[in-house]
Amino acid sequence: MRQSAAPSPRTRIRRLPDRARYDAATIAEIIDAAMLCTVAFQIDGSVHAIPITHWREGGHLYIHGAKASRMFKALTEGEACVTVALADGLVLARSALHHSMNYRSIVLYGRFEAVTDPVRKQESLQSFIDGLYPGRWDSLRPITRKEVDATAVLRIALDEAAAKVRNGGVKDEPADLDWRAWAGVIPLHTVIGEPAPARDSAVSKVPATRLG
Amino acid sequence: MRQSAAPSPRTRIRRLPDRARYDAATIAEIIDAAMLCTVAFQIDGSVHAIPITHWREGGHLYIHGAKASRMFKALTEGEACVTVALADGLVLARSALHHSMNYRSIVLYGRFEAVTDPVRKQESLQSFIDGLYPGRWDSLRPITRKEVDATAVLRIALDEAAAKVRNGGVKDEPADLDWRAWAGVIPLHTVIGEPAPARDSAVSKVPATRLG
Repeated sequence: MRQSAAPSPRTRIRRLPDRARYDAATIAEIIDAAMLCTVAFQIDGSVHAIPITHWREGGHLYIHGAKASRMFKALTEGEACVTVALADGLVLARSALHHSMNYRSIVLYGRFEAVTDPVRKQESLQSFIDGLYPGRWDSLRPITRKEVDATAVLRIALDEAAAKVRNGGVKDEPADLDWRAWAGVIPLHTVIGEPAPARDSAVSKVPATRLG
Repeated sequence: MRQSAAPSPRTRIRRLPDRARYDAATIAEIIDAAMLCTVAFQIDGSVHAIPITHWREGGHLYIHGAKASRMFKALTEGEACVTVALADGLVLARSALHHSMNYRSIVLYGRFEAVTDPVRKQESLQSFIDGLYPGRWDSLRPITRKEVDATAVLRIALDEAAAKVRNGGVKDEPADLDWRAWAGVIPLHTVIGEPAPARDSAVSKVPATRLG
Protein backbone atom coordinates (compact mmCIF):
# COMPACT_ATOMS: atom_id res chain seq x y z
CA MET A 1 0.00 0.00 0.00
CA ARG A 2 1.45 3.26 -1.15
CA GLN A 3 1.49 5.91 1.52
CA SER A 4 2.40 9.55 1.37
CA ALA A 5 2.11 12.64 3.54
CA ALA A 6 -1.02 14.72 3.98
CA PRO A 7 -0.79 17.86 1.83
CA SER A 8 -1.91 20.14 4.71
CA PRO A 9 -2.84 20.04 8.40
CA ARG A 10 -6.57 20.10 7.59
CA THR A 11 -6.36 17.07 5.32
CA ARG A 12 -4.36 14.99 7.81
CA ILE A 13 -6.67 12.19 8.93
CA ARG A 14 -6.64 11.92 12.72
CA ARG A 15 -9.45 9.40 13.22
CA LEU A 16 -8.38 5.87 12.11
CA PRO A 17 -5.25 7.18 10.30
CA ASP A 18 -4.45 3.70 8.92
CA ARG A 19 -7.35 4.24 6.51
CA ALA A 20 -5.81 7.42 5.07
CA ARG A 21 -4.45 7.67 1.50
CA TYR A 22 -2.91 10.80 0.10
CA ASP A 23 -1.63 9.65 -3.29
CA ALA A 24 -3.04 11.22 -6.44
CA ALA A 25 -3.90 7.88 -8.11
CA THR A 26 -6.19 6.75 -5.28
CA ILE A 27 -7.87 10.16 -5.11
CA ALA A 28 -8.46 10.22 -8.89
CA GLU A 29 -9.85 6.68 -8.88
CA ILE A 30 -12.42 7.47 -6.19
CA ILE A 31 -13.54 10.66 -7.93
CA ASP A 32 -13.93 8.78 -11.22
CA ALA A 33 -15.94 5.96 -9.65
CA ALA A 34 -18.60 8.34 -8.30
CA MET A 35 -21.37 10.14 -10.18
CA LEU A 36 -22.02 12.69 -7.44
CA CYS A 37 -19.99 14.77 -5.02
CA THR A 38 -21.11 17.18 -2.31
CA VAL A 39 -19.80 20.73 -2.38
CA ALA A 40 -19.83 22.61 0.95
CA PHE A 41 -19.32 26.37 1.11
CA GLN A 42 -20.35 29.46 3.03
CA ILE A 43 -22.72 32.30 2.21
CA ASP A 44 -22.70 35.16 4.72
CA GLY A 45 -21.09 32.94 7.33
CA SER A 46 -23.72 30.19 6.97
CA VAL A 47 -22.66 26.72 5.83
CA HIS A 48 -24.34 25.18 2.79
CA ALA A 49 -23.78 21.86 1.04
CA ILE A 50 -25.16 20.73 -2.31
CA PRO A 51 -24.89 17.36 -4.07
CA ILE A 52 -23.84 17.82 -7.68
CA THR A 53 -22.51 15.74 -10.55
CA HIS A 54 -18.79 16.11 -11.28
CA TRP A 55 -16.02 14.99 -13.58
CA ARG A 56 -12.25 15.03 -13.49
CA GLU A 57 -9.59 16.17 -15.92
CA GLY A 58 -6.04 15.54 -14.71
CA GLY A 59 -5.52 17.24 -11.38
CA HIS A 60 -8.86 19.08 -11.23
CA LEU A 61 -12.43 18.22 -10.28
CA TYR A 62 -15.05 19.99 -12.42
CA ILE A 63 -18.69 20.92 -11.93
CA HIS A 64 -21.09 22.76 -14.19
CA GLY A 65 -24.42 24.52 -13.92
CA ALA A 66 -26.45 27.59 -14.70
CA LYS A 67 -24.39 30.73 -14.88
CA ALA A 68 -26.68 32.79 -12.65
CA SER A 69 -26.56 30.39 -9.70
CA ARG A 70 -25.96 31.84 -6.23
CA MET A 71 -23.90 28.79 -5.36
CA PHE A 72 -21.47 29.25 -8.24
CA LYS A 73 -20.96 32.88 -7.26
CA ALA A 74 -20.20 31.83 -3.67
CA LEU A 75 -17.82 29.12 -4.87
CA THR A 76 -15.55 31.48 -6.77
CA GLU A 77 -15.51 33.94 -3.88
CA GLY A 78 -14.67 31.67 -0.96
CA GLU A 79 -13.23 28.37 0.18
CA ALA A 80 -15.01 25.10 -0.48
CA CYS A 81 -14.83 21.57 0.84
CA VAL A 82 -15.78 18.79 -1.57
CA THR A 83 -16.57 15.22 -0.55
CA VAL A 84 -17.05 12.04 -2.53
CA ALA A 85 -18.19 8.84 -0.84
CA LEU A 86 -18.89 5.32 -2.09
CA ALA A 87 -20.40 2.59 0.08
CA ASP A 88 -18.67 -0.66 -0.93
CA GLY A 89 -19.86 -3.15 1.66
CA LEU A 90 -21.57 -3.86 4.94
CA VAL A 91 -19.33 -5.36 7.61
CA LEU A 92 -21.20 -7.50 10.13
CA ALA A 93 -19.47 -8.36 13.40
CA ARG A 94 -20.49 -10.33 16.49
CA SER A 95 -20.80 -7.17 18.57
CA ALA A 96 -22.77 -4.06 17.65
CA LEU A 97 -19.92 -1.56 17.72
CA HIS A 98 -17.63 -3.62 15.49
CA HIS A 99 -20.16 -3.41 12.69
CA SER A 100 -18.67 -1.23 10.02
CA MET A 101 -18.76 -0.35 6.37
CA ASN A 102 -16.28 -0.74 3.54
CA TYR A 103 -16.12 2.57 1.74
CA ARG A 104 -13.98 4.90 -0.33
CA SER A 105 -14.18 8.62 0.30
CA ILE A 106 -12.29 11.81 -0.35
CA VAL A 107 -12.31 15.22 1.26
CA LEU A 108 -10.89 18.07 -0.81
CA TYR A 109 -10.26 21.69 0.21
CA GLY A 110 -9.66 24.68 -1.99
CA ARG A 111 -11.24 27.37 -4.07
CA PHE A 112 -13.10 26.86 -7.33
CA GLU A 113 -12.15 28.91 -10.36
CA ALA A 114 -14.40 29.57 -13.33
CA VAL A 115 -13.36 28.24 -16.73
CA THR A 116 -14.23 31.31 -18.81
CA ASP A 117 -12.57 30.75 -22.17
CA PRO A 118 -15.39 29.38 -24.40
CA VAL A 119 -13.10 26.97 -26.25
CA ARG A 120 -11.73 25.51 -23.00
CA LYS A 121 -15.22 25.39 -21.57
CA GLN A 122 -16.52 23.45 -24.53
CA GLU A 123 -13.55 21.04 -24.46
CA SER A 124 -14.26 20.48 -20.81
CA LEU A 125 -17.94 19.71 -21.38
CA GLN A 126 -16.86 17.30 -24.09
CA SER A 127 -14.51 15.64 -21.65
CA PHE A 128 -17.44 15.23 -19.21
CA ILE A 129 -19.70 13.60 -21.82
CA ASP A 130 -16.98 11.45 -23.40
CA GLY A 131 -15.61 10.46 -20.00
CA LEU A 132 -19.00 9.03 -19.08
CA TYR A 133 -19.99 7.78 -22.57
CA PRO A 134 -16.84 7.15 -24.64
CA GLY A 135 -17.06 8.80 -28.06
CA ARG A 136 -20.58 10.17 -27.57
CA TRP A 137 -19.84 13.89 -28.08
CA ASP A 138 -19.32 13.59 -31.83
CA SER A 139 -22.67 11.82 -32.26
CA LEU A 140 -24.66 14.61 -30.59
CA ARG A 141 -26.34 17.63 -32.09
CA PRO A 142 -23.44 20.09 -32.04
CA ILE A 143 -23.37 22.40 -29.05
CA THR A 144 -24.09 26.05 -29.78
CA ARG A 145 -22.13 29.05 -28.62
CA LYS A 146 -25.26 30.25 -26.81
CA GLU A 147 -25.39 26.98 -24.84
CA VAL A 148 -21.72 27.24 -23.95
CA ASP A 149 -22.17 30.84 -22.84
CA ALA A 150 -25.16 30.02 -20.63
CA THR A 151 -23.25 27.27 -18.81
CA ALA A 152 -20.84 27.89 -15.99
CA VAL A 153 -17.94 25.45 -15.62
CA LEU A 154 -15.97 25.56 -12.38
CA ARG A 155 -12.92 23.58 -11.37
CA ILE A 156 -10.96 22.98 -8.20
CA ALA A 157 -7.41 21.63 -7.96
CA LEU A 158 -6.93 18.27 -6.25
CA ASP A 159 -3.86 19.63 -4.44
CA GLU A 160 -5.32 19.58 -0.95
CA ALA A 161 -7.13 16.27 -0.78
CA ALA A 162 -7.21 13.16 1.35
CA ALA A 163 -8.82 9.81 0.73
CA LYS A 164 -10.11 7.46 3.40
CA VAL A 165 -10.63 3.83 2.50
CA ARG A 166 -11.88 0.82 4.44
CA ASN A 167 -11.61 -2.37 2.50
CA GLY A 168 -11.34 -5.46 4.59
CA GLY A 169 -12.97 -8.06 6.75
CA VAL A 170 -14.51 -8.17 10.17
CA LYS A 171 -12.55 -7.17 13.22
CA ASP A 172 -14.09 -8.69 16.32
CA GLU A 173 -12.80 -8.88 19.87
CA PRO A 174 -10.99 -12.22 20.30
CA ALA A 175 -13.37 -13.10 23.14
CA ASP A 176 -16.39 -12.72 20.82
CA LEU A 177 -15.25 -15.00 18.00
CA ASP A 178 -17.40 -17.95 19.03
CA TRP A 179 -20.53 -15.88 19.40
CA ARG A 180 -23.34 -17.34 17.31
CA ALA A 181 -24.02 -14.43 14.97
CA TRP A 182 -23.11 -14.41 11.28
CA ALA A 183 -19.92 -12.45 10.69
CA GLY A 184 -18.63 -11.31 7.34
CA VAL A 185 -18.90 -8.75 4.59
CA ILE A 186 -21.89 -8.13 2.32
CA PRO A 187 -20.58 -6.24 -0.74
CA LEU A 188 -22.54 -3.41 -2.33
CA HIS A 189 -22.31 -2.71 -6.05
CA THR A 190 -23.70 -0.06 -8.33
CA VAL A 191 -25.01 -1.70 -11.48
CA ILE A 192 -26.68 -0.58 -14.64
CA GLY A 193 -30.29 -1.63 -15.11
CA GLU A 194 -32.26 -2.22 -18.27
CA PRO A 195 -31.92 0.86 -20.51
CA ALA A 196 -35.24 2.58 -21.27
CA PRO A 197 -35.00 4.19 -24.73
CA ALA A 198 -37.07 7.29 -25.41
CA ARG A 199 -40.10 6.30 -27.51
CA ASP A 200 -38.79 8.46 -30.34
CA SER A 201 -35.11 7.46 -30.15
CA ALA A 202 -33.89 7.23 -33.75
CA VAL A 203 -31.04 4.88 -32.76
CA SER A 204 -31.39 1.53 -31.01
CA LYS A 205 -27.78 0.79 -29.95
CA VAL A 206 -27.37 1.83 -26.31
CA PRO A 207 -24.10 3.68 -25.66
CA ALA A 208 -21.49 2.17 -23.39
CA THR A 209 -20.88 4.01 -20.13
CA ARG A 210 -17.85 4.36 -17.88
CA LEU A 211 -19.80 2.36 -15.31
CA GLY A 212 -20.00 -0.70 -17.59
CA MET B 1 -47.25 14.69 -7.03
CA ARG B 2 -47.66 15.95 -3.48
CA GLN B 3 -46.22 19.40 -2.96
CA SER B 4 -45.81 21.49 0.15
CA ALA B 5 -44.08 24.69 1.19
CA ALA B 6 -40.39 25.03 2.00
CA PRO B 7 -39.90 25.10 5.77
CA SER B 8 -37.54 28.10 5.58
CA PRO B 9 -36.03 30.57 3.08
CA ARG B 10 -32.76 28.62 2.95
CA THR B 11 -34.44 25.35 2.06
CA ARG B 12 -36.57 26.89 -0.70
CA ILE B 13 -35.25 25.42 -3.94
CA ARG B 14 -34.70 28.19 -6.48
CA ARG B 15 -32.95 26.22 -9.22
CA LEU B 16 -35.40 23.88 -11.04
CA PRO B 17 -38.12 24.32 -8.37
CA ASP B 18 -40.36 21.73 -10.04
CA ARG B 19 -37.96 19.11 -8.65
CA ALA B 20 -38.48 20.26 -5.04
CA ARG B 21 -40.29 18.15 -2.43
CA TYR B 22 -40.82 19.31 1.11
CA ASP B 23 -43.04 16.58 2.55
CA ALA B 24 -41.75 14.49 5.45
CA ALA B 25 -42.48 11.13 3.78
CA THR B 26 -40.27 11.86 0.75
CA ILE B 27 -37.48 13.19 2.95
CA ALA B 28 -37.61 10.11 5.22
CA GLU B 29 -37.63 7.72 2.26
CA ILE B 30 -34.50 9.26 0.73
CA ILE B 31 -32.64 9.22 4.05
CA ASP B 32 -33.58 5.55 4.56
CA ALA B 33 -32.47 4.53 1.07
CA ALA B 34 -28.92 5.85 1.59
CA MET B 35 -26.07 4.37 3.61
CA LEU B 36 -24.06 7.59 3.77
CA CYS B 37 -24.72 11.27 4.23
CA THR B 38 -22.32 14.22 4.19
CA VAL B 39 -22.22 16.52 7.20
CA ALA B 40 -20.92 20.05 6.57
CA PHE B 41 -19.98 22.37 9.43
CA GLN B 42 -17.58 25.10 10.43
CA ILE B 43 -14.52 25.12 12.66
CA ASP B 44 -13.05 28.57 13.32
CA GLY B 45 -14.85 29.98 10.28
CA SER B 46 -13.51 27.28 7.93
CA VAL B 47 -15.95 24.95 6.19
CA HIS B 48 -15.53 21.19 6.58
CA ALA B 49 -17.56 18.30 5.23
CA ILE B 50 -17.34 14.64 6.17
CA PRO B 51 -19.12 11.60 4.73
CA ILE B 52 -20.57 9.47 7.51
CA THR B 53 -23.08 6.65 7.93
CA HIS B 54 -26.47 7.63 9.34
CA TRP B 55 -29.83 6.30 10.39
CA ARG B 56 -33.24 7.77 11.04
CA GLU B 57 -35.69 7.48 13.91
CA GLY B 58 -38.94 9.35 13.35
CA GLY B 59 -38.19 12.99 12.65
CA HIS B 60 -34.43 12.87 13.37
CA LEU B 61 -31.33 11.83 11.48
CA TYR B 62 -28.68 10.17 13.71
CA ILE B 63 -24.92 9.73 13.44
CA HIS B 64 -22.47 8.10 15.81
CA GLY B 65 -18.76 8.04 16.36
CA ALA B 66 -15.93 8.33 18.82
CA LYS B 67 -16.68 10.60 21.72
CA ALA B 68 -13.43 12.56 21.49
CA SER B 69 -13.87 13.60 17.86
CA ARG B 70 -13.25 17.24 16.94
CA MET B 71 -16.09 17.04 14.44
CA PHE B 72 -18.66 15.96 17.01
CA LYS B 73 -17.64 18.82 19.30
CA ALA B 74 -18.06 21.29 16.41
CA LEU B 75 -21.44 19.80 15.50
CA THR B 76 -23.00 20.43 18.90
CA GLU B 77 -21.61 23.96 18.99
CA GLY B 78 -22.67 25.30 15.60
CA GLU B 79 -24.98 24.94 12.65
CA ALA B 80 -24.66 22.04 10.22
CA CYS B 81 -25.87 21.24 6.74
CA VAL B 82 -26.46 17.56 5.95
CA THR B 83 -26.85 16.18 2.43
CA VAL B 84 -27.94 12.79 1.13
CA ALA B 85 -27.75 11.97 -2.57
CA LEU B 86 -28.60 8.90 -4.62
CA ALA B 87 -27.85 8.55 -8.32
CA ASP B 88 -30.79 6.69 -9.87
CA GLY B 89 -30.15 6.91 -13.58
CA LEU B 90 -28.27 8.45 -16.47
CA VAL B 91 -30.36 10.51 -18.86
CA LEU B 92 -28.98 10.64 -22.40
CA ALA B 93 -30.28 13.30 -24.76
CA ARG B 94 -29.51 14.24 -28.38
CA SER B 95 -27.69 17.41 -27.29
CA ALA B 96 -24.94 17.64 -24.69
CA LEU B 97 -26.61 20.05 -22.31
CA HIS B 98 -29.86 18.08 -22.07
CA HIS B 99 -27.98 15.12 -20.67
CA SER B 100 -29.03 14.78 -17.08
CA MET B 101 -29.29 12.41 -14.15
CA ASN B 102 -32.18 10.95 -12.26
CA TYR B 103 -31.46 11.38 -8.57
CA ARG B 104 -32.94 11.79 -5.13
CA SER B 105 -31.29 14.19 -2.71
CA ILE B 106 -31.96 16.06 0.48
CA VAL B 107 -30.40 19.09 2.09
CA LEU B 108 -31.05 19.55 5.80
CA TYR B 109 -30.13 22.48 8.05
CA GLY B 110 -29.99 22.61 11.81
CA ARG B 111 -27.95 21.88 14.87
CA PHE B 112 -27.05 18.44 16.16
CA GLU B 113 -27.72 17.56 19.77
CA ALA B 114 -25.96 14.81 21.70
CA VAL B 115 -28.01 11.88 22.96
CA THR B 116 -26.48 11.58 26.43
CA ASP B 117 -28.81 9.32 28.39
CA PRO B 118 -27.15 5.88 28.19
CA VAL B 119 -30.45 4.02 27.92
CA ARG B 120 -31.65 6.21 25.04
CA LYS B 121 -28.23 5.99 23.43
CA GLN B 122 -28.29 2.21 23.54
CA GLU B 123 -31.86 2.07 22.20
CA SER B 124 -30.78 4.31 19.39
CA LEU B 125 -27.78 2.14 18.46
CA GLN B 126 -30.14 -0.84 18.49
CA SER B 127 -32.45 1.01 16.15
CA PHE B 128 -29.47 1.61 13.80
CA ILE B 129 -28.49 -2.09 13.73
CA ASP B 130 -32.03 -3.46 13.56
CA GLY B 131 -33.02 -0.88 10.96
CA LEU B 132 -30.27 -2.17 8.70
CA TYR B 133 -30.47 -5.85 9.70
CA PRO B 134 -33.96 -6.62 11.05
CA GLY B 135 -33.78 -8.46 14.38
CA ARG B 136 -29.99 -8.63 14.51
CA TRP B 137 -29.40 -6.78 17.79
CA ASP B 138 -30.64 -9.62 19.99
CA SER B 139 -28.32 -12.11 18.28
CA LEU B 140 -25.19 -10.06 19.02
CA ARG B 141 -22.82 -10.25 21.96
CA PRO B 142 -24.57 -7.83 24.34
CA ILE B 143 -23.25 -4.29 24.25
CA THR B 144 -21.40 -3.18 27.39
CA ARG B 145 -21.90 0.02 29.32
CA LYS B 146 -18.28 0.89 28.55
CA GLU B 147 -18.97 0.63 24.80
CA VAL B 148 -22.07 2.78 25.11
CA ASP B 149 -20.13 5.37 27.12
CA ALA B 150 -17.29 5.54 24.57
CA THR B 151 -19.72 6.18 21.70
CA ALA B 152 -21.18 9.55 20.89
CA VAL B 153 -24.64 9.59 19.33
CA LEU B 154 -25.81 12.84 17.77
CA ARG B 155 -29.14 13.67 16.18
CA ILE B 156 -30.56 16.49 14.12
CA ALA B 157 -34.25 17.25 13.57
CA LEU B 158 -35.60 16.95 10.04
CA ASP B 159 -37.59 20.19 10.51
CA GLU B 160 -35.63 22.29 8.05
CA ALA B 161 -35.12 19.99 5.08
CA ALA B 162 -35.81 19.95 1.38
CA ALA B 163 -35.67 17.09 -1.09
CA LYS B 164 -34.86 17.43 -4.76
CA VAL B 165 -35.87 14.62 -7.08
CA ARG B 166 -35.49 14.07 -10.80
CA ASN B 167 -37.25 10.98 -12.01
CA GLY B 168 -38.24 11.06 -15.62
CA GLY B 169 -37.31 10.73 -19.21
CA VAL B 170 -35.32 12.72 -21.72
CA LYS B 171 -36.20 16.32 -22.48
CA ASP B 172 -34.78 17.33 -25.84
CA GLU B 173 -35.40 20.41 -27.94
CA PRO B 174 -38.19 19.64 -30.42
CA ALA B 175 -35.83 20.47 -33.29
CA ASP B 176 -33.34 17.80 -32.10
CA LEU B 177 -35.72 14.85 -31.91
CA ASP B 178 -34.66 13.30 -35.21
CA TRP B 179 -30.97 13.52 -34.42
CA ARG B 180 -29.30 10.13 -34.75
CA ALA B 181 -28.05 9.63 -31.22
CA TRP B 182 -29.54 7.14 -28.74
CA ALA B 183 -31.84 8.89 -26.29
CA GLY B 184 -33.20 7.39 -23.12
CA VAL B 185 -32.52 6.54 -19.50
CA ILE B 186 -29.98 4.06 -18.17
CA PRO B 187 -31.04 3.19 -14.61
CA LEU B 188 -28.50 2.76 -11.81
CA HIS B 189 -29.15 0.36 -8.94
CA THR B 190 -27.30 -0.49 -5.76
CA VAL B 191 -27.30 -4.24 -5.32
CA ILE B 192 -25.94 -6.68 -2.81
CA GLY B 193 -23.09 -8.89 -3.97
CA GLU B 194 -22.08 -12.37 -2.85
CA PRO B 195 -21.70 -12.32 0.97
CA ALA B 196 -18.19 -13.19 2.17
CA PRO B 197 -18.45 -14.90 5.55
CA ALA B 198 -15.57 -14.52 7.98
CA ARG B 199 -13.55 -17.73 7.97
CA ASP B 200 -14.46 -18.30 11.61
CA SER B 201 -18.15 -17.34 11.40
CA ALA B 202 -20.01 -19.79 13.65
CA VAL B 203 -23.28 -19.24 11.75
CA SER B 204 -23.86 -19.79 8.04
CA LYS B 205 -27.23 -18.07 7.50
CA VAL B 206 -26.57 -14.58 6.10
CA PRO B 207 -28.78 -11.92 7.72
CA ALA B 208 -31.30 -10.00 5.64
CA THR B 209 -30.60 -6.32 5.15
CA ARG B 210 -32.84 -3.31 4.57
CA LEU B 211 -31.30 -3.10 1.10
CA GLY B 212 -32.62 -6.54 0.09
